[in-house]
Amino acid sequence: MVILGIDPGLATMGYGVIEVEGEKRRVIQFGTLTTKAAEPTPQRLRSIFLGVNQLMDIYQPDDVAFEELFFSKNVTTGINVSQARGAALVAVATRTENLYEYTPMQIKQAITGWGGADKHQIQMMVKALLNMREIARPDDAADALAVALTHANSMKMKKLFKIQ
Amino acid sequence: MVILGIDPGLATMGYGVIEVEGEKRRVIQFGTLTTKAAEPTPQRLRSIFLGVNQLMDIYQPDDVAFEELFFSKNVTTGINVSQARGAALVAVATRTENLYEYTPMQIKQAITGWGGADKHQIQMMVKALLNMREIARPDDAADALAVALTHANSMKMKKLFKIQ
Repeated sequence: MVILGIDPGLATMGYGVIEVEGEKRRVIQFGTLTTKAAEPTPQRLRSIFLGVNQLMDIYQPDDVAFEELFFSKNVTTGINVSQARGAALVAVATRTENLYEYTPMQIKQAITGWGGADKHQIQMMVKALLNMREIARPDDAADALAVALTHANSMKMKKLFKIQ
Repeated sequence: MVILGIDPGLATMGYGVIEVEGEKRRVIQFGTLTTKAAEPTPQRLRSIFLGVNQLMDIYQPDDVAFEELFFSKNVTTGINVSQARGAALVAVATRTENLYEYTPMQIKQAITGWGGADKHQIQMMVKALLNMREIARPDDAADALAVALTHANSMKMKKLFKIQ
């Protein structure tokens, strides 16, 4: 199955596409959708919406996993990220019900087994788990791969413990 | 011309549709789009996106005016409102470029001429300016009519002072 992971943002939204087959996981693609600060917010949100729709068209993911937002120290950044997240969520939610959300804590635990892991440790684990030669760049793309992997691991756990 | 005003929210999104002809302004419709707290956020955002698309289909507004969000004391509410605002903005921005945003301060000044006006004073002015028998209910719908009126007045001011 194909999983699309999304790390929402207004200026830069990371995405990562992986394929999962039993215990095997491989990278299909990763990258970012970017919008320019000079453009009005509605046009930037429109770009994100259309960009996520394109990702859905190109990769036809079975499941889509989003990093969940809890809070932001900077209120303006918080509003921008939340609006961008809303635009991206809607692009997916109008096309599929297979949409999942994971908190930063859940992602850290799923990838490294430890909720206190730092960004670099997560990136190293993502590289190892996906057999990549280099750490994925930029950070937002690596984060998006981490969300996709979290979803893959979470499904595995559900099967192990026969949840649902 | 027809103006659609939107006061964004996740649980309740107010909308107000007015017609402007020279100095005349009349109400076409007002109301709310609501989503249930029991539903997952992506489904609620989907409802908002589809609801705003329906408003666009039904009223075919020439211009759409949104209340702008500056900050929220409650961080969770701020995230929810921002995500909902993102979903609603995208629904409009994918269909028209005639999208305008007004801050709460601009709305107060446009409607009452005074940035310190309270909610009730604004509602009374909305009622008076639109020749309504009663104050529009609920509050979110009245707020949406206020945004639409703000846009109508703002266009008038631009003409008076030959801005642009």
